Amino acid sequence: MHIGFLGLGHMGAPMARNLLKAGHQLTVFDPVPASVASLVEAGAQAADSAGGVARADVELIVTMLPAAAHVKAVYLGDDDLLANVRPGVLLIDSSTIDPHSAREVAAAAEQHGNPMLDAPVSGGTGGAAAGTLTFMVGGSDADFDRARAVLAAMGKNIVHCGGHGNGQAAKVANNLLLGISMIGVSEAMSLGVALGVDPKVLAGIINTSSGRCWSSDTYNPFPGVMDNVPASRGYEGGFGTDLMLKDLGLASEAAKQVRQPVLLGALAQQLYQAFSAQGNGQLDFSAIINLYRKDA
Amino acid sequence: MHIGFLGLGHMGAPMARNLLKAGHQLTVFDPVPASVASLVEAGAQAADSAGGVARADVELIVTMLPAAAHVKAVYLGDDDLLANVRPGVLLIDSSTIDPHSAREVAAAAEQHGNPMLDAPVSGGTGGAAAGTLTFMVGGSDADFDRARAVLAAMGKNIVHCGGHGNGQAAKVANNLLLGISMIGVSEAMSLGVALGVDPKVLAGIINTSSGRCWSSDTYNPFPGVMDNVPASRGYEGGFGTDLMLKDLGLASEAAKQVRQPVLLGALAQQLYQAFSAQGNGQLDFSAIINLYRKDA
Amino acid sequence: MHIGFLGLGHMGAPMARNLLKAGHQLTVFDPVPASVASLVEAGAQAADSAGGVARADVELIVTMLPAAAHVKAVYLGDDDLLANVRPGVLLIDSSTIDPHSAREVAAAAEQHGNPMLDAPVSGGTGGAAAGTLTFMVGGSDADFDRARAVLAAMGKNIVHCGGHGNGQAAKVANNLLLGISMIGVSEAMSLGVALGVDPKVLAGIINTSSGRCWSSDTYNPFPGVMDNVPASRGYEGGFGTDLMLKDLGLASEAAKQVRQPVLLGALAQQLYQAFSAQGNGQLDFSAIINLYRKDA
Amino acid sequence: MHIGFLGLGHMGAPMARNLLKAGHQLTVFDPVPASVASLVEAGAQAADSAGGVARADVELIVTMLPAAAHVKAVYLGDDDLLANVRPGVLLIDSSTIDPHSAREVAAAAEQHGNPMLDAPVSGGTGGAAAGTLTFMVGGSDADFDRARAVLAAMGKNIVHCGGHGNGQAAKVANNLLLGISMIGVSEAMSLGVALGVDPKVLAGIINTSSGRCWSSDTYNPFPGVMDNVPASRGYEGGFGTDLMLKDLGLASEAAKQVRQPVLLGALAQQLYQAFSAQGNGQLDFSAIINLYRKDA
Repeated sequence: MHIGFLGLGHMGAPMARNLLKAGHQLTVFDPVPASVASLVEAGAQAADSAGGVARADVELIVTMLPAAAHVKAVYLGDDDLLANVRPGVLLIDSSTIDPHSAREVAAAAEQHGNPMLDAPVSGGTGGAAAGTLTFMVGGSDADFDRARAVLAAMGKNIVHCGGHGNGQAAKVANNLLLGISMIGVSEAMSLGVALGVDPKVLAGIINTSSGRCWSSDTYNPFPGVMDNVPASRGYEGGFGTDLMLKDLGLASEAAKQVRQPVLLGALAQQLYQAFSAQGNGQLDFSAIINLYRKDA
Repeated sequence: MHIGFLGLGHMGAPMARNLLKAGHQLTVFDPVPASVASLVEAGAQAADSAGGVARADVELIVTMLPAAAHVKAVYLGDDDLLANVRPGVLLIDSSTIDPHSAREVAAAAEQHGNPMLDAPVSGGTGGAAAGTLTFMVGGSDADFDRARAVLAAMGKNIVHCGGHGNGQAAKVANNLLLGISMIGVSEAMSLGVALGVDPKVLAGIINTSSGRCWSSDTYNPFPGVMDNVPASRGYEGGFGTDLMLKDLGLASEAAKQVRQPVLLGALAQQLYQAFSAQGNGQLDFSAIINLYRKDA
Repeated sequence: MHIGFLGLGHMGAPMARNLLKAGHQLTVFDPVPASVASLVEAGAQAADSAGGVARADVELIVTMLPAAAHVKAVYLGDDDLLANVRPGVLLIDSSTIDPHSAREVAAAAEQHGNPMLDAPVSGGTGGAAAGTLTFMVGGSDADFDRARAVLAAMGKNIVHCGGHGNGQAAKVANNLLLGISMIGVSEAMSLGVALGVDPKVLAGIINTSSGRCWSSDTYNPFPGVMDNVPASRGYEGGFGTDLMLKDLGLASEAAKQVRQPVLLGALAQQLYQAFSAQGNGQLDFSAIINLYRKDA
Repeated sequence: MHIGFLGLGHMGAPMARNLLKAGHQLTVFDPVPASVASLVEAGAQAADSAGGVARADVELIVTMLPAAAHVKAVYLGDDDLLANVRPGVLLIDSSTIDPHSAREVAAAAEQHGNPMLDAPVSGGTGGAAAGTLTFMVGGSDADFDRARAVLAAMGKNIVHCGGHGNGQAAKVANNLLLGISMIGVSEAMSLGVALGVDPKVLAGIINTSSGRCWSSDTYNPFPGVMDNVPASRGYEGGFGTDLMLKDLGLASEAAKQVRQPVLLGALAQQLYQAFSAQGNGQLDFSAIINLYRKDA
């Protein structure tokens, strides 16, 4: 299939490579020339703008952009995607943005005759490189079916979450819970250890009890409890505090739009913000436990 | 083995019955005569006081009491356990109390020549009846080994958490996390549904993603998502809001003693308190989601 | 002076009337024709658009709009204020928006040759009608001096807070504190009364002690403590919960931009959001005490 | 009048001295001999125990002790106050404790034939030395009238708050609000300054607006805004963070007893706890602003 791809950053570049590996023809664009050059070397063709990608003879376009403002600009701008794309081309936005904006852009696309899916991912740069991302997809059944094979070249778990914006809504809900759970684990581990329990023993108990969660049994923030997690290597790599902060910002913004309180969520957001303000925004988000450990 | 048992409430009575079923000889006491009578009918002998249990020729005594004040009174009172028990008898307190008080009582016991274990449980009245409780045990290796077979008659998961008070510390840490996670799931499910996602679809996504936790995949608070959980039967039965409130009170009290902040924990405690103050203290703690659901 | 006025809502209309009363000539616009008609009857001239006001021979323009999106549209739109106004005309935006947006618009205005001030107000519709508003003004000394007499026709307290955006920053900081204090008073009054203290006695003690604050001594939320406050008339009138919610939203948004944590502020925002979600958005914000009163 | 005085610490000693200055005869006790010696030098007589004070021919006894445990021990202990005091002697406890304990001790005193008042103070060691304390008094009208002249020798504001425990309840409510307000001011000042407003200008605006409170206009935590407050001298002196922490602990404990939520209060308590855990417990509580200031 001839596919257009916009946004070749830390996530977009490896995703695009996986499409090439799966045998698809790719026309790409990114404002950073080096990012484009690197994909061209791997076999893609370069367009000179978003509009240029749209004017190429593509059947489907994937976008992977930093925030809602970029998504709106790239889709709705005067000389950009919708202004140039042929009706019928399937548009898939894999950026993580708020559900409201996703629905706004999808409505504009459909008015223009282009089916659209929101398909944010989880799994990080590791999952993007390995092609093991999870896609949370919002849009019609037919469009989901049409996109599935393409998405499967980039991920291994492709979940249909309902209509437009529901992919974003599901991701925002999951990451809200993740942001809370990680701080919950941080408080519980720090308290138990301060009370005298060995951290590995404590994690073992929690992981077989009702406190069990991904943040405890797969990504424990206490140093020395697990190997191969950011806590065992000084919180390098992983999912950055500032990325978690962005996702909790989306959650509280979405909650505001539907007037839904998120009390623990808002407090968690402020704690990551305090931690980031201390200069830790690039550390993995599990480093938030350092707010609680006296010896850290 | 001849075992003394004190405290025959909702948890203590079925635990004592399981000891009888395992072939142990039991001498029991409870201030409620009917509770004693019921155990006597099942084969136990009655003592007329805590001191009476201690004076019986028992090798080991289990206590299951409501709060630290009762534990201190029963162990340290003028005519009670320590004042009457033969040195060498192993004392096991399965009440849920703060680690500090547990250590205080254990120190008094050891001074009197009695080895002691704190061994709080999780698993609720269901686990107590089925003999499938988890015991979190604090005390020496030797005493833990000595107690293991007896505890195994009442539970299936017997975990040694370290020295005196560490059983309580581990339980308090786990339940702190549980109390937070349940509200986290409540916020995430309510937000996702308010944004338009089907609750079963959303739970399915969370349960295979990084938000996964016991409160979501085993005890989901959103009605209709799972069968056989309190949410599917009007939040009857289960683990009462007021019990969770008690455990979070222990957690924040223990945190105060070691000057360890528990920010999400303290907020969670207040939310259960607000919910209880509205008359919901007897509902299962997962009913806290009703604070978030407009249609509930 | 010939003054342009845009935005004739609950606040803008009485402010514009006070300018007429002070002898100024007014050219006005609002998208609601009846709002314009009412001002014309009072002596103003009507323009047919924002651009029309700008093209009239005015020396100064005041805008009073609901949110940042409106301010950006009206100032920066293709056929709107900046596209039509003569360089040198002083622009005063009295809308309450985030400091970042205020600075963005001011920079565009100055580039176009128009000095600009942000001048949000406090004092509510009562203060707007009586001409007793407080103006918190951001911009240069010279522009502040030039605007002072005009603002004095609408308010009695005109405070210069520093450069562009500082009027908005000062307002957002004050209202953040106000939103927190009101909940603080609600918690303290509700707790003291639940513990048995008479509400008037308690308010008297607080108001002469270190808990003293405007929310307690001037606007007490407990019914029956003060006359002539919303709490004494079923929380009708006053400053609506949804307006407080908007201001706390601006505060947490501004805090996010400068990565400054606002922990109590974010929790307060969620509590007003929960209260609004229960259908109370139109009640005065002091009604938040009903979240705490069992008998309410 | 011949008065007994128990507890000669930082607060009790200057209070006792003011009773001597007012011409009263004093019999005192404290477990620290040097504290007793210092008062004897000033004209008091020494007793050798709490019981010794009770057996002296006193008409009234004042106690000033660190916490509820001490108050219960001194009043209810086997050879202490109630066991030795003559019926009819008026007992005044000026310690700051929870209302529940105050009522428990008062009930025991009245059963023994001794009228009792709880009379906690505010005003700090400065107010104790200057005789300008505020007394918040719980007990009967008659007992309040009987005590007033004695209290007036130590304070200038003597407020009757209702029956037993209401002095404590009023203090706990006021200090709950104070603890919240101080953090509210810290967040508002830090945010406004981070957004570019000068701290003195910002404080000036808040102090004449709806954010006005004692923590802002009398005890501003931002360095350089006011003279003669702890913020202007490195947060030395004043009201220690650990004392505020104690009072918020009393508030959340009292709230638990009457099942009254204190959401901002609990969060404030955790923030002071986090700050104390960092080694700042002896700094004035207004130093909490350092949690928010990047340059601090």
